[in-house]
Amino acid sequence: MNVTLRGRTAHFRTVTFDAGRNAVLLVEQRLLPHDFKIVATPDFRQTAQAIRDMVVRGAGAIGATAAYGLAQGARAFNGRDLKNFLRHVERVFQTLQAARPTAVDPVNAMNRVRTAMSAGQTVEEQQALALAAAEEFANEDVRHCEDIGRHGATLVRNGMNLLTHCNAGWLAFVDVGSATAPMYAAQAQGKRFHVYCDETRPRSQGATLTAWELAQQKISHQIIADSAAGHLMQRGNVDLVIVGSDRTLGRTGEVANKIGTYTKAVLAKRHGIPFYVAIPLSTIDWNLKSGFDIPIEERHESEVLGAWGAGMNPKFRVRSRKSGRPSYVRVANPTSGAFNPGFDVTPPDLITGIITPAGIFKPRELWARRWELGRGPG
Amino acid sequence: MNVTLRGRTAHFRTVTFDAGRNAVLLVEQRLLPHDFKIVATPDFRQTAQAIRDMVVRGAGAIGATAAYGLAQGARAFNGRDLKNFLRHVERVFQTLQAARPTAVDPVNAMNRVRTAMSAGQTVEEQQALALAAAEEFANEDVRHCEDIGRHGATLVRNGMNLLTHCNAGWLAFVDVGSATAPMYAAQAQGKRFHVYCDETRPRSQGATLTAWELAQQKISHQIIADSAAGHLMQRGNVDLVIVGSDRTLGRTGEVANKIGTYTKAVLAKRHGIPFYVAIPLSTIDWNLKSGFDIPIEERHESEVLGAWGAGMNPKFRVRSRKSGRPSYVRVANPTSGAFNPGFDVTPPDLITGIITPAGIFKPRELWARRWELGRGPG
Repeated sequence: MNVTLRGRTAHFRTVTFDAGRNAVLLVEQRLLPHDFKIVATPDFRQTAQAIRDMVVRGAGAIGATAAYGLAQGARAFNGRDLKNFLRHVERVFQTLQAARPTAVDPVNAMNRVRTAMSAGQTVEEQQALALAAAEEFANEDVRHCEDIGRHGATLVRNGMNLLTHCNAGWLAFVDVGSATAPMYAAQAQGKRFHVYCDETRPRSQGATLTAWELAQQKISHQIIADSAAGHLMQRGNVDLVIVGSDRTLGRTGEVANKIGTYTKAVLAKRHGIPFYVAIPLSTIDWNLKSGFDIPIEERHESEVLGAWGAGMNPKFRVRSRKSGRPSYVRVANPTSGAFNPGFDVTPPDLITGIITPAGIFKPRELWARRWELGRGPG
Repeated sequence: MNVTLRGRTAHFRTVTFDAGRNAVLLVEQRLLPHDFKIVATPDFRQTAQAIRDMVVRGAGAIGATAAYGLAQGARAFNGRDLKNFLRHVERVFQTLQAARPTAVDPVNAMNRVRTAMSAGQTVEEQQALALAAAEEFANEDVRHCEDIGRHGATLVRNGMNLLTHCNAGWLAFVDVGSATAPMYAAQAQGKRFHVYCDETRPRSQGATLTAWELAQQKISHQIIADSAAGHLMQRGNVDLVIVGSDRTLGRTGEVANKIGTYTKAVLAKRHGIPFYVAIPLSTIDWNLKSGFDIPIEERHESEVLGAWGAGMNPKFRVRSRKSGRPSYVRVANPTSGAFNPGFDVTPPDLITGIITPAGIFKPRELWARRWELGRGPG
């Protein structure tokens, strides 16, 4: 989407690839919203590290990053022995997969790349096919988000108040976003609406990334504490909830997403407010039979015990001069610990509909419509 | 309760009065959990300012602070003219009341003091009676919290996981606390249990104050993001919720408390988890007929847009050297605003019981039992 820097507006993708340098180029999301910067990861291990460290995050963006990372790793192989090459590619695959165990996108994306590669007869051919497949994956991600926007925009009416949680915006994808796609499409259609962004503790992706995106796009919005949504719904101030998903179970319609999503779904149900989940097809897991089988990443307690911010008081040098990265402050009692599950699972009875590139479906319809939703041979 | 400072344990109340200096003494809650300090407010305007600035917060603590503040203001009057004196007292009353419009405790507390004063024939007599009434109010607050603990401890069983929101601990009262009283009483009975403390954004009273209290009392606990409670309940990891209240409507059983309380009640209902509200009698509002009439304080957006913390990295001088007070960092996108309602209202159908000093009642029972619950002539 567009970013305005020093008064000039330019278009950026979250993830791109520099074939000449064999480097993945990423918007450094940990600097946002205080600084906008593109960083390059020069080898697949650093690409995996960037996923692990949340330089890049979000379903589509880490899918494309893993796809590019696999191509990058494949292209870094020197030699002609196909067997050694494939062993090397397997190591690259494992390294990138291990960077985010909860997410299904990196695996789906890399499987796509690996399948495309296998048509090559030589190492060189497979390397070329890997990059082409990764590029196609990224381009398809953008097209799918645009399709989500087209379908989802039909839900947005003039004067509505929307609520979203975490960041399922263009920063979470290659471009456009999933939960934000209907907003951007509705805006393009001239509709006027207001968006409440859940802060989304502990990493505050709503307050930092979604709010930054919406501000860049000039969409009316306000940040709220995660705890405030219930009150807003009770007072009739939320008309529609749209969130993203890290993994949606094709067999059950269960949705794994950022911690707190489930709470918003329970609240929306109580108040009769439509609750939609916007997803690209790559986020659908057709194998798992129960949401309880989704591994819930337990993240480091320091996320809950403090916050990352930039000093507003010139007396305090809160911001590191070197990187411009927001600094960590300890908020909580220094002698207390925290429990920090990163994701939760929302059951299908709380979900009004799943907005996909192929249309809007009831969560329990996904399995019956699996062929048009691109279920692979898994 | 007990506080351990440099290895020595001593007993403190949150609010006391120094009659010699005519000063209210307060635990400076904005320094906690990083620093423990008692501050004195030397006149009633500064006492009101301390309430407004959240040096002191919580139902009972601001009630006692207002009671002492009224006595303080009355005692500062020079002269013998009773009419002028009463005009002055009225100004003091209004100033203290305006410091926290949502709370009912300051008004109830000051009405008690004013009623007691009126038995005095002279200014001097009224001044003495004011202080005696304020002291009695503070002592009664402690006794009531102990009674809440006695009743509430019957709900706590060995091995339970409890959840609490915000701080309704001894820091929110003169001592012991409301939501924490059953925990402290159960601990004294030798019961073992674990407490999840909601962080309670935006001011993080759970992560700072409740966690600090529980750590001082050596009660097993962990801080969680406000968004994590739903996931914990879904996985069967919460057995009992106990929260406090800023105002409970005696006629309807509705409970106004820190923003996010309503959400926890909705989640507890869905999961069949008992949801209790612990309150001193002074928190009951016998007049209002609907929760929608409770004024919901809209607080400054900076609370949601940032966080108060202390620097953990010695490279950054985050903490002000002068006061030891945690510094503010901006977390959110600098070009976005926030909406920050401070409280929400939980309806009686979501509340299992109200733990009062007089016993545990269904929320809709309060009105029928109003005489034993000390309904005044209001």
